[in-house]
Amino acid sequence: MLFSKKEYQDRLKKTQHSMQEKGLELLISQDTNNINYLTGYDAWSFYYAQCVIVHVNLEEPLCFVRAQDAGGAYIKTYLKKENIIVYDEKYIHTWPMHPYDSLVSLIKERKWDKLNIGVEMDSHYFTAYSYEKLKKGLPNANITDSERLINWVRFLKSEAEINLMKGAAKISENAMKVAMESINPGIRQCDAVAEIQRALFRGTPEIGGEYASIAVLLPTGKGTSASHLTATDEKFVNGEATVVELSGVNKRYHCPIARTVHLGKPEQKKIDAMKATNEALNEGISAAKPGNTADDVAQKFWGVLDKYNIKKESRTGYSIGIGYPPDWGEHTLNISKDDKTILKPNACFHMIAVMQFGDWGVEASESVRITDKGSELFCNFPKDLHIK
Amino acid sequence: MLFSKKEYQDRLKKTQHSMQEKGLELLISQDTNNINYLTGYDAWSFYYAQCVIVHVNLEEPLCFVRAQDAGGAYIKTYLKKENIIVYDEKYIHTWPMHPYDSLVSLIKERKWDKLNIGVEMDSHYFTAYSYEKLKKGLPNANITDSERLINWVRFLKSEAEINLMKGAAKISENAMKVAMESINPGIRQCDAVAEIQRALFRGTPEIGGEYASIAVLLPTGKGTSASHLTATDEKFVNGEATVVELSGVNKRYHCPIARTVHLGKPEQKKIDAMKATNEALNEGISAAKPGNTADDVAQKFWGVLDKYNIKKESRTGYSIGIGYPPDWGEHTLNISKDDKTILKPNACFHMIAVMQFGDWGVEASESVRITDKGSELFCNFPKDLHIK
Repeated sequence: MLFSKKEYQDRLKKTQHSMQEKGLELLISQDTNNINYLTGYDAWSFYYAQCVIVHVNLEEPLCFVRAQDAGGAYIKTYLKKENIIVYDEKYIHTWPMHPYDSLVSLIKERKWDKLNIGVEMDSHYFTAYSYEKLKKGLPNANITDSERLINWVRFLKSEAEINLMKGAAKISENAMKVAMESINPGIRQCDAVAEIQRALFRGTPEIGGEYASIAVLLPTGKGTSASHLTATDEKFVNGEATVVELSGVNKRYHCPIARTVHLGKPEQKKIDAMKATNEALNEGISAAKPGNTADDVAQKFWGVLDKYNIKKESRTGYSIGIGYPPDWGEHTLNISKDDKTILKPNACFHMIAVMQFGDWGVEASESVRITDKGSELFCNFPKDLHIK
Repeated sequence: MLFSKKEYQDRLKKTQHSMQEKGLELLISQDTNNINYLTGYDAWSFYYAQCVIVHVNLEEPLCFVRAQDAGGAYIKTYLKKENIIVYDEKYIHTWPMHPYDSLVSLIKERKWDKLNIGVEMDSHYFTAYSYEKLKKGLPNANITDSERLINWVRFLKSEAEINLMKGAAKISENAMKVAMESINPGIRQCDAVAEIQRALFRGTPEIGGEYASIAVLLPTGKGTSASHLTATDEKFVNGEATVVELSGVNKRYHCPIARTVHLGKPEQKKIDAMKATNEALNEGISAAKPGNTADDVAQKFWGVLDKYNIKKESRTGYSIGIGYPPDWGEHTLNISKDDKTILKPNACFHMIAVMQFGDWGVEASESVRITDKGSELFCNFPKDLHIK
């Protein structure tokens, strides 16, 4: 078991407390991260229906998985065997049959079909089809959007979680160092990623790495104007910049980092943009402390950009912790103006400045932890434009 | 452009033809694979709303992406700039605002809000929230499930696609060879995956590798009873089996392969199970030819299992091609009894036998292409239990 039973029980109690506040008696979460958080379940089975089911009064949640994954649930969760609910293989991609037919039957058997049931309407993998199955199968239930209830329980980390993230940060540093060494003119992008991936999985002698919830992002040249491009088998070109965004992963906990490397002498505009970006990041992070809001951090960040007359429309950060594909963001706090979320100790976020200027761009980021009096960075790696 | 403009146009025409058959005038597809198939778009931006929009009469589809990804869409798609529709950054994770608010506005502006509109109800990332936004925002539209309309257009590959898959298969072979070399007693699982990942990205001198849509699956020891477990930092143990399932990727096209390796002398039951599994796979594949159905292949496969009195509940294959996380299956053909899909030349599927026996298991697979008269395997790699 990765965490103590007490820690899992605390997570459940906080979730049930939030459910009571929202008037929910049953909560169905298809969010892979939330399933992991509440049960310990960890497998690449999220490509079809599975969920954690929380009853407001029960001492354990239920983990609902397909038959082929029952063995994984017995190994990975802390739950009693009776709380792992297995659905039949006949439901896998055999529409109009669907795993949620089996879920509806389960809810009826337990006589939960007249309860106030929360579902995570906009969470990854909670498809419109699953929702319709529940609505049609449970006409007497009151089904509402629980929004990001469990995500918000995840917002403040325990010391055990912080320690895992510190381990992930060490892996991120190692991998970024390898990235900076591997990106050279005439080298294929994929060959640089090969070395980065190797570093991400080797981790440290004490901590092994895992697959990240986002692939290594590696926009290069004109691609630096687009933040989510991945490596191809084309070669790096002298005179061009490359953005590297990656994350070490330790027991599913992430600590992402982004840096920009330039091959050959950069134009002055890129040097200036990188300097302004880093000044804005540092200024924003200086406002990251308990009692301040996400907006306070954003105001400081955009204050610097305004000084340099730089426009940026997108948010500049989001909460982090557990991650499964396709995202390592927690979908709670955003570092943007008007986000009035109050920062508290052990809130953790990825403060990332994606700066796009037509057909070029630069990026840098820090993973930040709110401490008792201020904040600290998870990674120790220079943010300057890395020129080689 | 990865494919000729004619190939993209053919794909669109086939899609529009299917739409006409189903009585659909507009199709909204959030499926990452379908977006790539119809536009060429390729970026890790699928963690929030994006889609391809097909009007039954227009000469190009629309690609709907967030502002931050506009640059990526200009670079990666074959579309005219006017057909790349960019939504504002203010919609990113700022509920109750949502990118589909912007999509609704677009559909109204184009006066498409009274059409018969198809949506892919059970596709990855098409959340219940997105669906509700469409239903509430377009009360005069007739919104129905298009099911896997575009997925079925993808079912039969072009020669260009087959060539890409053959390249992916070479990468799969290389990586599986590295896996067999790297898995040894006392080695951490993550360190073996580090070498496998390196091989997957290095690819061949001619073809660079990409991230796969499923992480390297590496259940070991008791974990072989569960098919979707990934590597940890624990060490391989002498006397235990490890299943390796991976895929080389070439321009998003996959050719998966699964093999089982055993460290030290295996028990006879594992040797016997592996032999029966491979006999069943070979017998099933012998029935894979144009005119036969998926059921014909399945009957042959289960015929062998019955002979050995082995039970297996799960399907034993599925269609493959383009893949994005979380899946490399196409969600069309299943190799299972009662799937009456007729095999035709250039249908491609992953024939995989996941064999679970309580607290242990074995696996093997082949990626198969239907040819004019029969079938051929993409990978050339022995399926025997690899004992070392």
